[in-house]
Amino acid sequence: MGSKKMRIGILSAGGDCPGINAAIRGVGKTAIVQYDMEVQGIVNGFSGLVETETIELTENLLSGILTLGGTILGTSRLKPFKASVGDEPLDKPGTIKKNYEELGLDALVCIGGNGTQETASLLAKEGLNVVGVPKTIDNDIWGTDVTFGFDTAYHIATEAIDRLHTTANSHKRVMVIEVMGHHAGWIALYSGMSGGGDVILVPEIDYSMESVAECLMERSRVKKPYSIVVVAEGLPKDSKKSAGAYIAKEIRKLTGLETRETILGYTQRGGSPTATDRILATQFGAYAAELIHQRKFGTMVAMRNGAVTSIPLDEVGGKIRLIKPDNKLVEIGRHMGVCFGD
Amino acid sequence: MGSKKMRIGILSAGGDCPGINAAIRGVGKTAIVQYDMEVQGIVNGFSGLVETETIELTENLLSGILTLGGTILGTSRLKPFKASVGDEPLDKPGTIKKNYEELGLDALVCIGGNGTQETASLLAKEGLNVVGVPKTIDNDIWGTDVTFGFDTAYHIATEAIDRLHTTANSHKRVMVIEVMGHHAGWIALYSGMSGGGDVILVPEIDYSMESVAECLMERSRVKKPYSIVVVAEGLPKDSKKSAGAYIAKEIRKLTGLETRETILGYTQRGGSPTATDRILATQFGAYAAELIHQRKFGTMVAMRNGAVTSIPLDEVGGKIRLIKPDNKLVEIGRHMGVCFGD
Amino acid sequence: MGSKKMRIGILSAGGDCPGINAAIRGVGKTAIVQYDMEVQGIVNGFSGLVETETIELTENLLSGILTLGGTILGTSRLKPFKASVGDEPLDKPGTIKKNYEELGLDALVCIGGNGTQETASLLAKEGLNVVGVPKTIDNDIWGTDVTFGFDTAYHIATEAIDRLHTTANSHKRVMVIEVMGHHAGWIALYSGMSGGGDVILVPEIDYSMESVAECLMERSRVKKPYSIVVVAEGLPKDSKKSAGAYIAKEIRKLTGLETRETILGYTQRGGSPTATDRILATQFGAYAAELIHQRKFGTMVAMRNGAVTSIPLDEVGGKIRLIKPDNKLVEIGRHMGVCFGD
Amino acid sequence: MGSKKMRIGILSAGGDCPGINAAIRGVGKTAIVQYDMEVQGIVNGFSGLVETETIELTENLLSGILTLGGTILGTSRLKPFKASVGDEPLDKPGTIKKNYEELGLDALVCIGGNGTQETASLLAKEGLNVVGVPKTIDNDIWGTDVTFGFDTAYHIATEAIDRLHTTANSHKRVMVIEVMGHHAGWIALYSGMSGGGDVILVPEIDYSMESVAECLMERSRVKKPYSIVVVAEGLPKDSKKSAGAYIAKEIRKLTGLETRETILGYTQRGGSPTATDRILATQFGAYAAELIHQRKFGTMVAMRNGAVTSIPLDEVGGKIRLIKPDNKLVEIGRHMGVCFGD
Repeated sequence: MGSKKMRIGILSAGGDCPGINAAIRGVGKTAIVQYDMEVQGIVNGFSGLVETETIELTENLLSGILTLGGTILGTSRLKPFKASVGDEPLDKPGTIKKNYEELGLDALVCIGGNGTQETASLLAKEGLNVVGVPKTIDNDIWGTDVTFGFDTAYHIATEAIDRLHTTANSHKRVMVIEVMGHHAGWIALYSGMSGGGDVILVPEIDYSMESVAECLMERSRVKKPYSIVVVAEGLPKDSKKSAGAYIAKEIRKLTGLETRETILGYTQRGGSPTATDRILATQFGAYAAELIHQRKFGTMVAMRNGAVTSIPLDEVGGKIRLIKPDNKLVEIGRHMGVCFGD
Repeated sequence: MGSKKMRIGILSAGGDCPGINAAIRGVGKTAIVQYDMEVQGIVNGFSGLVETETIELTENLLSGILTLGGTILGTSRLKPFKASVGDEPLDKPGTIKKNYEELGLDALVCIGGNGTQETASLLAKEGLNVVGVPKTIDNDIWGTDVTFGFDTAYHIATEAIDRLHTTANSHKRVMVIEVMGHHAGWIALYSGMSGGGDVILVPEIDYSMESVAECLMERSRVKKPYSIVVVAEGLPKDSKKSAGAYIAKEIRKLTGLETRETILGYTQRGGSPTATDRILATQFGAYAAELIHQRKFGTMVAMRNGAVTSIPLDEVGGKIRLIKPDNKLVEIGRHMGVCFGD
Repeated sequence: MGSKKMRIGILSAGGDCPGINAAIRGVGKTAIVQYDMEVQGIVNGFSGLVETETIELTENLLSGILTLGGTILGTSRLKPFKASVGDEPLDKPGTIKKNYEELGLDALVCIGGNGTQETASLLAKEGLNVVGVPKTIDNDIWGTDVTFGFDTAYHIATEAIDRLHTTANSHKRVMVIEVMGHHAGWIALYSGMSGGGDVILVPEIDYSMESVAECLMERSRVKKPYSIVVVAEGLPKDSKKSAGAYIAKEIRKLTGLETRETILGYTQRGGSPTATDRILATQFGAYAAELIHQRKFGTMVAMRNGAVTSIPLDEVGGKIRLIKPDNKLVEIGRHMGVCFGD
Repeated sequence: MGSKKMRIGILSAGGDCPGINAAIRGVGKTAIVQYDMEVQGIVNGFSGLVETETIELTENLLSGILTLGGTILGTSRLKPFKASVGDEPLDKPGTIKKNYEELGLDALVCIGGNGTQETASLLAKEGLNVVGVPKTIDNDIWGTDVTFGFDTAYHIATEAIDRLHTTANSHKRVMVIEVMGHHAGWIALYSGMSGGGDVILVPEIDYSMESVAECLMERSRVKKPYSIVVVAEGLPKDSKKSAGAYIAKEIRKLTGLETRETILGYTQRGGSPTATDRILATQFGAYAAELIHQRKFGTMVAMRNGAVTSIPLDEVGGKIRLIKPDNKLVEIGRHMGVCFGD
């Protein structure tokens, strides 16, 4: 490289999530201030690499984005290794490789969830210098103890549960709240425990409606005036209804208790990140720049046992981080009388 | 009355709403501190008068409830003048009158919505000394310019809309949000205007999906990257779907734009009231105590042109306060480019 | 004017305040969408007119600023009619008039507090087509019942008071909180009443420390575990200390009760405006555009008895809107046992 | 113990902090539901053991306290091993030991900061079965990576910094904000990094005013319109002024830049805990009950490398956990251009 400045690209792909801009800022400021690199923002995820849509990220452009939700670079769900027209695969990876070179990039930071990290891993195998930064509100990326976006999401869910308590109490009702989490129940578990949920249902723990109904009837028998049921959207069920609507209907049927449901939806993934997520995203972003400086490519930034570190990208792909059977917070919940439906 | 202290009852009926406790405190503290009255809290709305379930409200009990959501007295939806077994009406009003006398009450404060004020009016005709205090998040009680609960509800809705902006922008989507409002669109109008909604649909303004679709396509044509559509739950529609889900589906069908819906639900009516609602509820409660002191019974507390006043209860019943065709905020919205679907 | 578009300027002057951007957006969008005007933003208050620093405000530039605190135009405290070098007055008004004409402006919207409206009035007398829009967190502009910024400020103060309650209660302390308000005690009165303050001290009501101490000792005697004292910064006192520090010190001296003070400071005037302030600022801005369209110059937008209207600018200058002796909220407070120190 | 139920006491001592009630609930519910113990709440810290003031904590009493700030048990700063009259030490520890036995306690949970854990350690040496639970917003207890209260405190500080940005930007000012932290700068470091602070001053890093002034002048030279300076209250200085006021004055003197200060104060330690603090306090409380069940006395609950564990109480006393010179977040800050004044 000689006297030439290193030149890196950053993109965000997949669903949006609070903290992406903080991570972009973390990568960019560290790259510019500490390592004297040039930084290109790539617009709309991998699409921006296919169509060569980029924007120079100067220090000034990176100022003031720490607190913004969403992503200033835009995002898309394009999966270059799966793109095809009919049965004919399109050579998107080839185009990306060519454009990566034409843009003069020395490295590429990919901020995204499970799908994005899988693509990042495949691009690394194609010879690109890739560093992955994990993000998802679902907190289910394999290899890292936590992802940014999760703290914001579960705090929003907790705030909603706080509000439901007063209505539930005034009307002596069962309130069911469905929170996000397709495969993993982390948001339900954490918001349920921090919001004082009485029943918490997550995909990782088999539940029966009889067991849920029995918990609620027992609470009714000992004169608890109301109950809060927190449900992950990905809960398995024999119904096309949303998880929240299904569980509420079954509770009404089995217990006769007055029951209402709330589906929290997209409000969980938008808006300004919590301070915790800003710190975490900043740490992840800064470490990605450091990994590039050390030429440790083909890696993903991760949090392990309280320290920021990295793991090989090819270990991440195709896996998912679920709540384990011996999860300590679940055990604490059980010991305090929370019902998990099993 | 001679040397005997005046003795008043307070109840809350109908749906819960932020600020009820502030109103109870306003009535109670003013009655005790200023007018040296005794105050009985009546439990679970009119049921508590049928079953004589009451609690003495001392100054100590009234301390610390200003900020609490829900109602410390509980509520119920019992409508004593409509109670019946089969075709046989039950004499609930008779029971209430008897118990009112046996409890030694000199006056009764009824905190509630349209239904509650109608019952209050009928009880006044039965000879009870009744003062009504209007409350509803829907802000649709006839005779008062505003009700407490509304400010909290539309601020929560605005906060949700704020969060949706970042997701909408990151993904270039149309985001539809359904907020509360069965008959009246006040929450949709106010949260839509304060949240920067691009389309606002309320029951009072006839809309066509063609018009809505045209607004959204025009925004798309001038490269606005996303749109926010705010919808009142009570919107008329040819569908069993919720208003939000229906409008989102039709938008997808007519425009082909990527569209997602959020149904905000019960989070709008719970939790701690805003400072504005605390002040309003306190003013309403304090004025109810003053009306009793002045023996102005058969009245409902109301806000008119910025001042707290009262109106006869029998003018309120059976009416509802809707957004009028010449509403000034709707006109302002139109002048700024907001689409109301007509 | 014939076929030529009308061309208007907007500036913000004086202290910043939540809602200024919402007002700028209200003026601008209404002017562009409804009245087909051209809109110039003038940078840094009246300085921008002296130095001809402006920015074209397009509809795109006005999008997304509704929720932002501060002012995108910047502000300054330059008072053109008071500018001088030594004893020699500088002809800033002359420069402003010349630049107003060179910029081709047909009207000028001045968003600001008491000082700004006074300048606006003087410029109107110089022949400029001026419309004033009142803003201040202190809520003390004469001629309007309310100004935007106030709602946000007193909600922030209320939230702070909410937090102090738990500390006060755990430690059985007197907590003194000083909130903003140089001449008028509106923030103290409203946050005190919505935050459940036990003592509220405002500049408009003469207080004695003996009376304050007696209130607090009486609360202590009847076993109230703690007390909250809300103090306006502009409270008269024989001390160079801040009002909060002074009152806390005197309370300690006179009562011996454990007392702590908090000076809330600048956090009250920053950040995103409440939904209420966004609506109010939007209404004020939109009405300013309407006044220009109707050529009602030399006026200030105002809220009177619940309706947006206008008053002559020359009635506003040099006056201030204080809490009156017969203020209804003060009376309600007294009736509920709040001590105002008199 | 045979068939007799185990009987435990819980007290909270020292300064209040968000999450204490969540910890009390965690201990109490786990003890009752899982281990079938009896639970006594001891009122006002160690004073309650000296004066035998207790309250039976039933499951019902523990419901609904998860979200409350402060402590339902009250607190005091009595240090029984330091109590004396004149030079004569009072035998408070003897009284405590006697009352512990008379109350029939089998174990005692002490929730508190550094001072409380030291007392707990001394009581353990006197033969009491003690388990410590660390709490402090300052996050400076030796032996645990984090304490509850800290997350809430630094999120409140971050929110305040967010608000200051808009005012700073509108007026082109330097804004100095003083946050809590007597010995350790954790709140300043975390809120500074999550709030986008430009200068962060903590007691652990030697600063010079020249260096601070140089950072700010450099920002001014490259046309950054404003700066945010975050200062820990415990910063060493040659002045009786508060740290924030001192730093602001020096900045004005050395740079001539318009500078304002805000002292955040007690609002940082009150109010409802964040979801993160509720979870952490629940985990700590539940683990304390488990330690008692396992008869692991003389220990303090701690978080180490992401897992809840315990350490011997006598290792904790007299030490304090400071920011180390090689702190990773400080390094990240430096790499991104944050000035730490050295």
